[in-house]
Amino acid sequence: MRQCPTIADQRAWTREQRQAARTIGFVPTMGALHEGHLTLVRQAKKSCATVVVSIFVNPTQFDRPEDFDKYPNTLAQDLALLEQEGVDAVFLPTKEELYPNGFATFVEVVGPLTDKLCAIARPGHFRGVSTVVAKLFNIVQPDVAVFGQKDLQQVLIVGRMVQDLDIPVRIEVGLTKREPDGLAMSSRNRRLSPAARKVALSLPRALELANRAFKSGEHTSLTLTNCVGEEILTNEGTDLDYADVIKLDGFKEVEFADEGCILAAAVFVDGVRLIDHVMLGGPSIPVIIE
Amino acid sequence: MRQCPTIADQRAWTREQRQAARTIGFVPTMGALHEGHLTLVRQAKKSCATVVVSIFVNPTQFDRPEDFDKYPNTLAQDLALLEQEGVDAVFLPTKEELYPNGFATFVEVVGPLTDKLCAIARPGHFRGVSTVVAKLFNIVQPDVAVFGQKDLQQVLIVGRMVQDLDIPVRIEVGLTKREPDGLAMSSRNRRLSPAARKVALSLPRALELANRAFKSGEHTSLTLTNCVGEEILTNEGTDLDYADVIKLDGFKEVEFADEGCILAAAVFVDGVRLIDHVMLGGPSIPVIIE
Repeated sequence: MRQCPTIADQRAWTREQRQAARTIGFVPTMGALHEGHLTLVRQAKKSCATVVVSIFVNPTQFDRPEDFDKYPNTLAQDLALLEQEGVDAVFLPTKEELYPNGFATFVEVVGPLTDKLCAIARPGHFRGVSTVVAKLFNIVQPDVAVFGQKDLQQVLIVGRMVQDLDIPVRIEVGLTKREPDGLAMSSRNRRLSPAARKVALSLPRALELANRAFKSGEHTSLTLTNCVGEEILTNEGTDLDYADVIKLDGFKEVEFADEGCILAAAVFVDGVRLIDHVMLGGPSIPVIIE
Repeated sequence: MRQCPTIADQRAWTREQRQAARTIGFVPTMGALHEGHLTLVRQAKKSCATVVVSIFVNPTQFDRPEDFDKYPNTLAQDLALLEQEGVDAVFLPTKEELYPNGFATFVEVVGPLTDKLCAIARPGHFRGVSTVVAKLFNIVQPDVAVFGQKDLQQVLIVGRMVQDLDIPVRIEVGLTKREPDGLAMSSRNRRLSPAARKVALSLPRALELANRAFKSGEHTSLTLTNCVGEEILTNEGTDLDYADVIKLDGFKEVEFADEGCILAAAVFVDGVRLIDHVMLGGPSIPVIIE
Protein backbone atom coordinates (compact mmCIF):
# COMPACT_ATOMS: atom_id res chain seq x y z
CA MET A 1 0.00 0.00 0.00
CA ARG A 2 1.52 3.26 -1.17
CA GLN A 3 1.49 6.13 1.32
CA CYS A 4 1.16 9.58 -0.28
CA PRO A 5 1.94 12.25 2.32
CA THR A 6 1.98 15.14 -0.19
CA ILE A 7 -0.17 16.38 -3.05
CA ALA A 8 2.70 15.68 -5.45
CA ASP A 9 2.96 12.06 -4.25
CA GLN A 10 -0.76 11.58 -4.72
CA ARG A 11 -0.71 13.14 -8.20
CA ALA A 12 2.19 10.88 -9.17
CA TRP A 13 0.28 7.78 -8.01
CA THR A 14 -2.83 8.91 -9.92
CA ARG A 15 -0.75 9.51 -13.06
CA GLU A 16 0.66 5.98 -12.83
CA GLN A 17 -2.85 4.51 -12.65
CA ARG A 18 -4.01 6.59 -15.61
CA GLN A 19 -1.02 5.49 -17.67
CA ALA A 20 -1.84 1.87 -16.82
CA ALA A 21 -5.50 2.56 -17.78
CA ARG A 22 -6.68 1.51 -14.31
CA THR A 23 -9.93 3.06 -13.03
CA ILE A 24 -9.57 4.75 -9.64
CA GLY A 25 -12.02 4.33 -6.76
CA PHE A 26 -11.76 6.82 -3.90
CA VAL A 27 -13.01 6.84 -0.31
CA PRO A 28 -12.39 10.15 1.47
CA THR A 29 -12.28 9.75 5.28
CA MET A 30 -11.26 11.59 8.42
CA GLY A 31 -9.65 8.43 9.81
CA ALA A 32 -10.74 6.69 13.02
CA LEU A 33 -11.84 3.98 10.63
CA HIS A 34 -14.55 1.47 11.44
CA GLU A 35 -16.44 -1.25 9.60
CA GLY A 36 -18.60 1.42 7.91
CA HIS A 37 -15.56 2.87 6.16
CA LEU A 38 -14.31 -0.59 5.23
CA THR A 39 -17.66 -1.35 3.60
CA LEU A 40 -17.17 1.74 1.43
CA VAL A 41 -13.66 0.55 0.56
CA ARG A 42 -15.00 -2.85 -0.52
CA GLN A 43 -17.64 -1.14 -2.65
CA ALA A 44 -14.95 1.01 -4.31
CA LYS A 45 -12.88 -2.12 -5.00
CA LYS A 46 -15.86 -3.70 -6.74
CA SER A 47 -16.36 -0.64 -8.94
CA CYS A 48 -12.76 0.15 -9.84
CA ALA A 49 -9.43 -1.45 -10.67
CA THR A 50 -7.56 0.37 -7.93
CA VAL A 51 -8.57 2.09 -4.69
CA VAL A 52 -7.21 5.07 -2.78
CA VAL A 53 -8.39 6.21 0.66
CA SER A 54 -7.67 9.66 2.04
CA ILE A 55 -7.30 10.31 5.75
CA PHE A 56 -7.58 13.99 6.56
CA VAL A 57 -9.30 15.61 9.51
CA ASN A 58 -10.51 18.68 7.67
CA PRO A 59 -10.39 21.74 9.94
CA THR A 60 -12.71 23.87 7.78
CA GLN A 61 -15.71 21.60 8.36
CA PHE A 62 -15.59 21.80 12.14
CA ASP A 63 -17.87 24.50 13.46
CA ARG A 64 -16.63 23.95 17.03
CA PRO A 65 -12.84 23.97 17.60
CA GLU A 66 -13.21 21.58 20.57
CA ASP A 67 -14.89 19.05 18.27
CA PHE A 68 -11.88 19.25 15.91
CA ASP A 69 -9.45 18.86 18.81
CA LYS A 70 -11.31 15.85 20.20
CA TYR A 71 -11.73 14.10 16.86
CA PRO A 72 -10.25 10.62 17.36
CA ASN A 73 -6.87 9.88 15.76
CA THR A 74 -6.00 6.20 15.29
CA LEU A 75 -3.63 6.42 12.32
CA ALA A 76 -1.53 3.29 12.91
CA GLN A 77 -4.62 1.16 13.31
CA ASP A 78 -6.27 2.83 10.29
CA LEU A 79 -3.30 2.02 8.07
CA ALA A 80 -3.27 -1.61 9.24
CA LEU A 81 -6.99 -1.95 8.45
CA LEU A 82 -6.59 -0.45 4.97
CA GLU A 83 -3.58 -2.66 4.23
CA GLN A 84 -5.68 -5.66 5.27
CA GLU A 85 -8.45 -4.59 2.88
CA GLY A 86 -5.99 -4.49 0.01
CA VAL A 87 -6.22 -0.74 -0.49
CA ASP A 88 -3.66 0.40 -3.08
CA ALA A 89 -2.84 3.89 -1.82
CA VAL A 90 -3.57 6.15 1.08
CA PHE A 91 -3.45 9.93 0.75
CA LEU A 92 -2.33 11.60 3.98
CA PRO A 93 -2.08 15.33 3.29
CA THR A 94 -1.26 17.90 5.94
CA LYS A 95 -3.52 20.82 6.70
CA GLU A 96 -0.58 23.13 6.01
CA GLU A 97 -0.40 21.86 2.42
CA LEU A 98 -4.16 21.83 1.79
CA TYR A 99 -4.74 25.22 3.43
CA PRO A 100 -1.63 27.34 2.96
CA ASN A 101 -1.47 30.96 4.08
CA GLY A 102 -3.69 33.12 1.91
CA PHE A 103 -6.15 30.33 1.18
CA ALA A 104 -9.38 32.12 0.17
CA THR A 105 -11.60 29.93 -2.01
CA PHE A 106 -14.76 28.11 -0.99
CA VAL A 107 -17.23 25.89 -2.78
CA GLU A 108 -20.73 26.31 -1.45
CA VAL A 109 -24.01 24.61 -2.23
CA VAL A 110 -26.93 26.93 -1.50
CA GLY A 111 -30.69 26.33 -1.33
CA PRO A 112 -32.79 23.54 0.19
CA LEU A 113 -29.88 21.13 0.75
CA THR A 114 -28.10 23.53 3.06
CA ASP A 115 -30.83 25.42 4.92
CA LYS A 116 -31.94 22.69 7.32
CA LEU A 117 -30.91 19.70 9.47
CA CYS A 118 -27.16 19.71 10.23
CA ALA A 119 -26.64 22.98 8.32
CA ILE A 120 -28.41 24.96 11.04
CA ALA A 121 -26.50 23.75 14.08
CA ARG A 122 -23.20 23.62 12.20
CA PRO A 123 -22.75 26.88 10.28
CA GLY A 124 -20.00 26.58 7.67
CA HIS A 125 -19.79 22.81 8.07
CA PHE A 126 -21.04 21.87 4.62
CA ARG A 127 -19.08 24.67 2.96
CA GLY A 128 -16.00 23.08 4.54
CA VAL A 129 -17.05 19.65 3.30
CA SER A 130 -17.78 20.69 -0.29
CA THR A 131 -14.56 22.70 -0.47
CA VAL A 132 -12.31 19.89 0.77
CA VAL A 133 -14.08 17.29 -1.38
CA ALA A 134 -13.62 19.49 -4.47
CA LYS A 135 -9.92 19.78 -3.59
CA LEU A 136 -9.52 16.04 -3.00
CA PHE A 137 -11.28 15.25 -6.28
CA ASN A 138 -8.95 17.62 -8.15
CA ILE A 139 -5.91 15.98 -6.61
CA VAL A 140 -6.94 12.31 -6.68
CA GLN A 141 -8.99 12.55 -9.92
CA PRO A 142 -10.95 9.38 -9.22
CA ASP A 143 -13.49 7.77 -11.54
CA VAL A 144 -15.72 6.82 -8.61
CA ALA A 145 -15.98 8.16 -5.06
CA VAL A 146 -17.93 6.33 -2.36
CA PHE A 147 -19.66 8.10 0.54
CA GLY A 148 -21.66 6.63 3.41
CA GLN A 149 -25.43 6.99 3.50
CA LYS A 150 -25.36 7.71 7.24
CA ASP A 151 -24.25 11.25 6.36
CA LEU A 152 -27.16 11.59 3.97
CA GLN A 153 -27.25 15.37 3.74
CA GLN A 154 -23.49 15.36 3.06
CA VAL A 155 -23.67 12.89 0.18
CA LEU A 156 -26.59 14.75 -1.39
CA ILE A 157 -24.62 18.00 -1.18
CA VAL A 158 -21.53 16.37 -2.70
CA GLY A 159 -23.69 14.92 -5.47
CA ARG A 160 -25.20 18.33 -6.17
CA MET A 161 -21.73 19.94 -6.27
CA VAL A 162 -20.38 17.28 -8.64
CA GLN A 163 -23.33 17.73 -10.98
CA ASP A 164 -23.32 21.54 -10.83
CA LEU A 165 -19.56 21.96 -11.29
CA ASP A 166 -19.36 19.22 -13.95
CA ILE A 167 -16.76 17.32 -11.93
CA PRO A 168 -16.00 14.10 -13.82
CA VAL A 169 -16.52 11.74 -10.85
CA ARG A 170 -19.33 9.23 -10.27
CA ILE A 171 -20.66 9.34 -6.70
CA GLU A 172 -21.71 6.04 -5.11
CA VAL A 173 -23.49 5.68 -1.78
CA GLY A 174 -22.68 2.89 0.68
CA LEU A 175 -25.41 1.72 3.06
CA THR A 176 -25.18 2.63 6.75
CA LYS A 177 -23.39 -0.02 8.81
CA ARG A 178 -24.74 -0.61 12.32
CA GLU A 179 -23.36 -2.19 15.48
CA PRO A 180 -25.09 -5.45 16.44
CA ASP A 181 -27.38 -3.50 18.79
CA GLY A 182 -28.43 -1.07 16.03
CA LEU A 183 -26.30 2.03 16.68
CA ALA A 184 -25.07 3.50 13.38
CA MET A 185 -21.30 3.23 13.16
CA SER A 186 -19.48 6.54 13.54
CA SER A 187 -15.99 7.58 14.49
CA ARG A 188 -17.63 9.71 17.17
CA ASN A 189 -18.96 6.60 18.95
CA ARG A 190 -15.44 6.12 20.35
CA ARG A 191 -15.95 9.22 22.46
CA LEU A 192 -18.96 7.73 24.28
CA SER A 193 -18.48 6.41 27.83
CA PRO A 194 -19.96 2.91 28.40
CA ALA A 195 -23.00 4.51 30.03
CA ALA A 196 -23.43 7.06 27.22
CA ARG A 197 -22.98 4.28 24.67
CA LYS A 198 -26.15 2.64 26.09
CA VAL A 199 -28.03 5.93 26.03
CA ALA A 200 -26.95 6.51 22.41
CA LEU A 201 -29.06 3.52 21.47
CA SER A 202 -32.13 5.64 22.07
CA LEU A 203 -31.43 7.32 18.69
CA PRO A 204 -31.91 4.29 16.41
CA ARG A 205 -34.65 3.02 18.75
CA ALA A 206 -36.52 6.31 18.45
CA LEU A 207 -36.21 6.26 14.66
CA GLU A 208 -37.42 2.67 14.48
CA LEU A 209 -40.37 3.44 16.78
CA ALA A 210 -41.37 6.30 14.49
CA ASN A 211 -40.96 4.04 11.47
CA ARG A 212 -43.29 1.52 13.10
CA ALA A 213 -45.81 4.27 13.87
CA PHE A 214 -45.60 5.35 10.20
CA LYS A 215 -46.17 1.80 9.03
CA SER A 216 -49.21 1.65 11.35
CA GLY A 217 -50.71 4.64 9.57
CA GLU A 218 -49.33 7.68 11.46
CA HIS A 219 -48.28 10.10 8.72
CA THR A 220 -48.29 13.43 10.59
CA SER A 221 -44.69 14.64 10.65
CA LEU A 222 -45.06 16.43 13.99
CA THR A 223 -46.35 13.29 15.69
CA LEU A 224 -43.49 11.23 14.26
CA THR A 225 -40.83 13.74 15.27
CA ASN A 226 -42.38 14.17 18.75
CA CYS A 227 -42.15 10.41 19.13
CA VAL A 228 -38.40 10.68 18.41
CA GLY A 229 -37.92 13.59 20.83
CA GLU A 230 -39.73 11.84 23.68
CA GLU A 231 -37.78 8.62 23.26
CA ILE A 232 -34.47 10.50 23.30
CA LEU A 233 -35.17 13.00 26.04
CA THR A 234 -36.32 10.45 28.66
CA ASN A 235 -32.61 9.72 29.04
CA GLU A 236 -30.34 11.84 31.22
CA GLY A 237 -27.54 13.75 29.50
CA THR A 238 -29.26 13.94 26.13
CA ASP A 239 -30.31 16.85 23.99
CA LEU A 240 -32.22 16.84 20.73
CA ASP A 241 -30.74 19.02 17.97
CA TYR A 242 -33.39 18.23 15.37
CA ALA A 243 -35.84 15.59 14.22
CA ASP A 244 -37.36 16.31 10.81
CA VAL A 245 -39.34 14.57 8.11
CA ILE A 246 -37.85 15.33 4.70
CA LYS A 247 -39.08 14.56 1.21
CA LEU A 248 -35.98 13.65 -0.80
CA ASP A 249 -37.34 15.15 -4.03
CA GLY A 250 -36.58 18.83 -3.43
CA PHE A 251 -35.18 18.10 0.06
CA LYS A 252 -38.15 19.78 1.72
CA GLU A 253 -39.66 19.48 5.17
CA VAL A 254 -43.20 18.09 4.83
CA GLU A 255 -46.20 18.28 7.14
CA PHE A 256 -47.33 14.79 6.20
CA ALA A 257 -44.95 11.94 5.49
CA ASP A 258 -45.20 9.81 2.35
CA GLU A 259 -43.57 6.44 1.74
CA GLY A 260 -39.90 7.08 1.01
CA CYS A 261 -39.65 10.25 3.09
CA ILE A 262 -36.71 10.38 5.45
CA LEU A 263 -36.95 10.92 9.20
CA ALA A 264 -33.59 12.36 10.21
CA ALA A 265 -32.40 13.26 13.70
CA ALA A 266 -29.35 14.64 15.47
CA VAL A 267 -28.84 14.27 19.22
CA PHE A 268 -26.24 15.09 21.78
CA VAL A 269 -25.36 12.30 24.22
CA ASP A 270 -23.00 13.51 26.94
CA GLY A 271 -21.88 16.26 24.57
CA VAL A 272 -21.16 13.90 21.65
CA ARG A 273 -23.23 14.74 18.56
CA LEU A 274 -24.73 11.74 16.77
CA ILE A 275 -26.86 11.66 13.62
CA ASP A 276 -28.97 8.95 12.03
CA HIS A 277 -32.05 8.62 9.82
CA VAL A 278 -34.60 6.07 8.69
CA MET A 279 -36.55 5.80 5.46
CA LEU A 280 -40.21 5.82 6.47
CA GLY A 281 -41.91 2.66 5.28
CA GLY A 282 -38.48 1.20 4.52
CA PRO A 283 -36.51 -1.58 6.20
CA SER A 284 -36.58 -1.74 10.00
CA ILE A 285 -33.54 -0.71 12.01
CA PRO A 286 -32.50 -3.84 13.95
CA VAL A 287 -32.89 -2.57 17.52
CA ILE A 288 -34.37 -4.32 20.53
CA ILE A 289 -37.61 -2.62 21.54
CA GLU A 290 -39.12 -3.88 24.78
CA MET B 1 -12.44 23.31 -36.50
CA ARG B 2 -14.68 21.08 -34.42
CA GLN B 3 -17.78 22.71 -32.97
CA CYS B 4 -18.87 21.27 -29.62
CA PRO B 5 -22.38 22.49 -28.79
CA THR B 6 -22.83 20.20 -25.76
CA ILE B 7 -20.82 19.16 -22.72
CA ALA B 8 -20.72 15.59 -24.06
CA ASP B 9 -19.29 16.79 -27.39
CA GLN B 10 -16.62 18.77 -25.58
CA ARG B 11 -15.71 15.86 -23.29
CA ALA B 12 -15.43 13.58 -26.33
CA TRP B 13 -13.07 16.02 -28.06
CA THR B 14 -10.97 16.34 -24.88
CA ARG B 15 -10.81 12.53 -24.54
CA GLU B 16 -9.52 12.25 -28.12
CA GLN B 17 -6.73 14.75 -27.41
CA ARG B 18 -5.76 12.91 -24.22
CA GLN B 19 -5.66 9.60 -26.06
CA ALA B 20 -3.41 11.17 -28.69
CA ALA B 21 -1.26 12.62 -25.86
CA ARG B 22 -1.80 16.17 -27.13
CA THR B 23 -1.64 18.98 -24.58
CA ILE B 24 -4.72 21.21 -24.53
CA GLY B 25 -4.64 25.01 -24.45
CA PHE B 26 -7.87 26.78 -23.57
CA VAL B 27 -9.14 30.34 -24.02
CA PRO B 28 -12.52 30.96 -22.35
CA THR B 29 -14.38 33.89 -23.92
CA MET B 30 -17.82 35.48 -24.06
CA GLY B 31 -17.54 35.91 -27.82
CA ALA B 32 -17.58 39.29 -29.61
CA LEU B 33 -13.98 38.44 -30.34
CA HIS B 34 -11.33 41.03 -31.09
CA GLU B 35 -7.59 41.11 -31.57
CA GLY B 36 -7.10 40.81 -27.79
CA HIS B 37 -8.76 37.40 -27.76
CA LEU B 38 -6.83 36.31 -30.84
CA THR B 39 -3.58 37.20 -29.09
CA LEU B 40 -4.57 34.86 -26.26
CA VAL B 41 -5.35 32.14 -28.81
CA ARG B 42 -1.90 32.54 -30.37
CA GLN B 43 -0.31 32.31 -26.93
CA ALA B 44 -2.27 29.10 -26.19
CA LYS B 45 -1.11 27.66 -29.53
CA LYS B 46 2.50 28.35 -28.58
CA SER B 47 2.08 26.58 -25.22
CA CYS B 48 0.04 23.55 -26.30
CA ALA B 49 -0.40 21.04 -29.11
CA THR B 50 -4.07 21.80 -29.57
CA VAL B 51 -6.32 24.74 -28.72
CA VAL B 52 -9.98 25.04 -27.77
CA VAL B 53 -11.88 28.30 -27.32
CA SER B 54 -15.19 28.53 -25.49
CA ILE B 55 -17.83 31.11 -26.36
CA PHE B 56 -20.39 31.48 -23.61
CA VAL B 57 -22.02 34.66 -22.36
CA ASN B 58 -22.25 33.62 -18.72
CA PRO B 59 -25.45 34.94 -17.14
CA THR B 60 -24.27 34.46 -13.54
CA GLN B 61 -21.48 37.03 -13.85
CA PHE B 62 -23.73 39.87 -14.98
CA ASP B 63 -24.83 41.98 -12.05
CA ARG B 64 -27.15 44.06 -14.29
CA PRO B 65 -29.61 42.17 -16.54
CA GLU B 66 -29.53 44.98 -19.13
CA ASP B 67 -25.75 44.52 -19.45
CA PHE B 68 -26.29 40.80 -20.19
CA ASP B 69 -29.00 41.60 -22.74
CA LYS B 70 -26.84 44.18 -24.49
CA TYR B 71 -23.69 42.04 -24.57
CA PRO B 72 -22.65 41.91 -28.24
CA ASN B 73 -23.23 38.67 -30.13
CA THR B 74 -21.17 38.18 -33.29
CA LEU B 75 -21.03 34.38 -33.46
CA ALA B 76 -20.63 33.91 -37.23
CA GLN B 77 -17.76 36.38 -37.32
CA ASP B 78 -16.23 34.86 -34.16
CA LEU B 79 -16.19 31.39 -35.71
CA ALA B 80 -14.60 32.71 -38.90
CA LEU B 81 -11.86 34.44 -36.89
CA LEU B 82 -11.12 31.31 -34.83
CA GLU B 83 -11.05 29.14 -37.96
CA GLN B 84 -8.57 31.59 -39.47
CA GLU B 85 -6.36 31.33 -36.38
CA GLY B 86 -6.26 27.56 -36.73
CA VAL B 87 -8.18 26.86 -33.53
CA ASP B 88 -8.91 23.13 -33.22
CA ALA B 89 -12.24 23.20 -31.38
CA VAL B 90 -14.80 25.66 -30.13
CA PHE B 91 -17.03 24.88 -27.16
CA LEU B 92 -20.47 26.52 -27.50
CA PRO B 93 -22.54 25.38 -24.52
CA THR B 94 -26.06 26.64 -23.83
CA LYS B 95 -27.00 28.30 -20.56
CA GLU B 96 -29.72 25.66 -20.16
CA GLU B 97 -27.08 22.90 -20.09
CA LEU B 98 -24.59 24.76 -17.88
CA TYR B 99 -27.25 26.00 -15.44
CA PRO B 100 -30.08 23.45 -15.34
CA ASN B 101 -33.02 23.81 -12.96
CA GLY B 102 -31.92 23.24 -9.40
CA PHE B 103 -28.38 24.53 -9.98
CA ALA B 104 -27.14 25.54 -6.52
CA THR B 105 -23.33 25.49 -6.32
CA PHE B 106 -20.98 28.43 -6.34
CA VAL B 107 -17.23 28.84 -6.14
CA GLU B 108 -16.24 31.99 -4.34
CA VAL B 109 -12.91 33.62 -3.62
CA VAL B 110 -13.09 35.73 -0.47
CA GLY B 111 -10.70 38.26 1.05
CA PRO B 112 -8.60 41.06 -0.44
CA LEU B 113 -9.04 39.97 -4.08
CA THR B 114 -12.82 40.39 -3.94
CA ASP B 115 -13.45 43.29 -1.56
CA LYS B 116 -12.43 46.17 -3.84
CA LEU B 117 -12.33 47.54 -7.39
CA CYS B 118 -14.85 45.81 -9.68
CA ALA B 119 -16.15 43.62 -6.83
CA ILE B 120 -17.86 46.60 -5.19
CA ALA B 121 -19.83 47.93 -8.14
CA ARG B 122 -20.59 44.42 -9.44
CA PRO B 123 -21.82 42.26 -6.54
CA GLY B 124 -21.80 38.57 -7.44
CA HIS B 125 -19.78 39.20 -10.61
CA PHE B 126 -16.61 37.41 -9.55
CA ARG B 127 -18.57 34.58 -7.92
CA GLY B 128 -20.17 34.07 -11.33
CA VAL B 129 -16.78 34.17 -13.02
CA SER B 130 -15.05 31.72 -10.68
CA THR B 131 -18.01 29.34 -10.81
CA VAL B 132 -18.22 29.23 -14.60
CA VAL B 133 -14.44 28.98 -14.97
CA ALA B 134 -14.39 26.03 -12.53
CA LYS B 135 -17.13 24.38 -14.59
CA LEU B 136 -15.37 25.03 -17.91
CA PHE B 137 -12.08 23.67 -16.52
CA ASN B 138 -13.85 20.49 -15.35
CA ILE B 139 -15.41 19.99 -18.77
CA VAL B 140 -12.50 21.00 -21.03
CA GLN B 141 -9.73 19.73 -18.70
CA PRO B 142 -7.04 21.84 -20.31
CA ASP B 143 -3.35 21.81 -19.45
CA VAL B 144 -3.09 25.58 -19.90
CA ALA B 145 -5.70 28.34 -19.86
CA VAL B 146 -4.93 31.86 -21.08
CA PHE B 147 -6.63 34.99 -19.68
CA GLY B 148 -6.15 38.61 -20.65
CA GLN B 149 -4.29 40.99 -18.35
CA LYS B 150 -6.81 43.76 -19.02
CA ASP B 151 -9.15 41.97 -16.60
CA LEU B 152 -6.42 41.89 -13.99
CA GLN B 153 -8.58 41.32 -10.94
CA GLN B 154 -10.33 38.47 -12.76
CA VAL B 155 -7.15 36.64 -13.67
CA LEU B 156 -5.78 37.01 -10.13
CA ILE B 157 -9.03 35.57 -8.74
CA VAL B 158 -8.94 32.68 -11.21
CA GLY B 159 -5.32 32.02 -10.29
CA ARG B 160 -6.19 32.02 -6.59
CA MET B 161 -9.08 29.61 -7.20
CA VAL B 162 -6.93 27.24 -9.25
CA GLN B 163 -4.27 27.21 -6.54
CA ASP B 164 -6.72 26.87 -3.64
CA LEU B 165 -8.86 24.13 -5.21
CA ASP B 166 -5.82 22.26 -6.60
CA ILE B 167 -7.22 22.44 -10.13
CA PRO B 168 -4.61 20.87 -12.45
CA VAL B 169 -4.47 23.77 -14.94
CA ARG B 170 -1.65 26.26 -15.56
CA ILE B 171 -2.89 29.84 -15.86
CA GLU B 172 -1.12 32.09 -18.37
CA VAL B 173 -1.70 35.82 -18.74
CA GLY B 174 -1.76 37.54 -22.13
CA LEU B 175 -0.79 41.23 -22.32
CA THR B 176 -3.48 43.85 -22.90
CA LYS B 177 -3.98 44.64 -26.60
CA ARG B 178 -4.75 48.26 -27.42
CA GLU B 179 -6.26 50.04 -30.41
CA PRO B 180 -3.78 52.26 -32.32
CA ASP B 181 -4.98 55.27 -30.30
CA GLY B 182 -4.39 53.50 -26.96
CA LEU B 183 -7.88 52.31 -25.92
CA ALA B 184 -7.69 48.83 -24.41
CA MET B 185 -9.54 46.34 -26.60
CA SER B 186 -12.82 45.13 -25.15
CA SER B 187 -15.97 43.58 -26.52
CA ARG B 188 -17.82 46.42 -24.85
CA ASN B 189 -16.10 49.00 -27.11
CA ARG B 190 -18.55 47.95 -29.85
CA ARG B 191 -21.33 49.56 -27.85
CA LEU B 192 -19.70 53.00 -27.93
CA SER B 193 -21.06 55.62 -30.36
CA PRO B 194 -18.37 57.37 -32.45
CA ALA B 195 -18.55 60.35 -30.07
CA ALA B 196 -18.35 58.12 -26.94
CA ARG B 197 -15.49 56.19 -28.56
CA LYS B 198 -13.45 59.44 -28.54
CA VAL B 199 -14.41 60.20 -24.94
CA ALA B 200 -13.40 56.65 -23.94
CA LEU B 201 -9.84 57.56 -24.81
CA SER B 202 -9.75 59.69 -21.68
CA LEU B 203 -9.35 56.45 -19.67
CA PRO B 204 -5.96 55.31 -21.03
CA ARG B 205 -4.89 58.99 -21.28
CA ALA B 206 -5.71 59.54 -17.61
CA LEU B 207 -3.79 56.40 -16.59
CA GLU B 208 -0.78 57.43 -18.65
CA LEU B 209 -0.85 60.97 -17.19
CA ALA B 210 -0.82 59.47 -13.70
CA ASN B 211 1.99 57.13 -14.69
CA ARG B 212 4.01 60.14 -15.89
CA ALA B 213 3.29 61.96 -12.65
CA PHE B 214 4.50 58.86 -10.74
CA LYS B 215 7.66 58.73 -12.81
CA SER B 216 8.22 62.42 -12.01
CA GLY B 217 8.14 61.62 -8.30
CA GLU B 218 4.48 61.88 -7.32
CA HIS B 219 3.87 58.83 -5.11
CA THR B 220 0.78 59.89 -3.14
CA SER B 221 -2.04 57.58 -4.19
CA LEU B 222 -4.75 60.19 -3.66
CA THR B 223 -2.98 62.67 -5.95
CA LEU B 224 -2.55 60.02 -8.64
CA THR B 225 -6.17 58.87 -8.48
CA ASN B 226 -7.44 62.48 -8.41
CA CYS B 227 -5.44 63.06 -11.56
CA VAL B 228 -7.34 60.16 -13.18
CA GLY B 229 -10.73 61.40 -11.96
CA GLU B 230 -10.17 64.93 -13.22
CA GLU B 231 -9.05 63.78 -16.67
CA ILE B 232 -12.11 61.53 -17.02
CA LEU B 233 -14.76 63.81 -15.56
CA THR B 234 -13.94 66.85 -17.74
CA ASN B 235 -15.81 64.92 -20.48
CA GLU B 236 -19.59 64.97 -20.77
CA GLY B 237 -21.42 61.69 -20.24
CA THR B 238 -18.73 60.11 -18.09
CA ASP B 239 -18.79 58.76 -14.57
CA LEU B 240 -15.93 57.42 -12.49
CA ASP B 241 -16.61 54.11 -10.73
CA TYR B 242 -13.21 53.83 -9.08
CA ALA B 243 -9.56 54.76 -9.41
CA ASP B 244 -7.30 52.96 -6.95
CA VAL B 245 -3.63 52.29 -6.35
CA ILE B 246 -3.10 48.63 -5.49
CA LYS B 247 -0.03 46.79 -4.30
CA LEU B 248 -0.13 43.40 -6.05
CA ASP B 249 1.47 41.57 -3.11
CA GLY B 250 -1.59 41.12 -0.88
CA PHE B 251 -3.81 43.06 -3.31
CA LYS B 252 -4.07 45.99 -0.92
CA GLU B 253 -4.91 49.65 -1.44
CA VAL B 254 -1.88 51.72 -0.48
CA GLU B 255 -1.55 55.36 0.58
CA PHE B 256 1.78 55.73 -1.20
CA ALA B 257 2.59 54.04 -4.48
CA ASP B 258 5.75 52.01 -5.00
CA GLU B 259 7.26 50.93 -8.29
CA GLY B 260 5.19 47.99 -9.59
CA CYS B 261 1.96 49.08 -7.94
CA ILE B 262 -1.08 49.08 -10.19
CA LEU B 263 -3.30 52.08 -10.84
CA ALA B 264 -6.65 50.62 -11.87
CA ALA B 265 -9.77 52.48 -12.94
CA ALA B 266 -13.32 51.82 -14.10
CA VAL B 267 -15.41 54.44 -15.85
CA PHE B 268 -18.79 54.73 -17.47
CA VAL B 269 -18.87 56.39 -20.88
CA ASP B 270 -22.43 56.92 -22.11
CA GLY B 271 -23.50 54.05 -19.83
CA VAL B 272 -20.84 51.61 -21.10
CA ARG B 273 -18.53 50.41 -18.33
CA LEU B 274 -14.83 50.30 -19.27
CA ILE B 275 -11.86 49.19 -17.17
CA ASP B 276 -8.14 49.57 -17.61
CA HIS B 277 -4.99 49.80 -15.50
CA VAL B 278 -1.36 50.79 -15.71
CA MET B 279 1.67 49.53 -13.83
CA LEU B 280 3.19 52.56 -12.14
CA GLY B 281 6.76 53.04 -13.28
CA GLY B 282 6.13 50.52 -16.05
CA PRO B 283 5.83 50.92 -19.83
CA SER B 284 3.90 53.93 -21.12
CA ILE B 285 0.46 53.49 -22.61
CA PRO B 286 0.77 54.71 -26.24
CA VAL B 287 -1.73 57.57 -26.14
CA ILE B 288 -1.45 61.03 -27.68
CA ILE B 289 -1.23 63.63 -24.91
CA GLU B 290 -1.38 67.25 -26.12
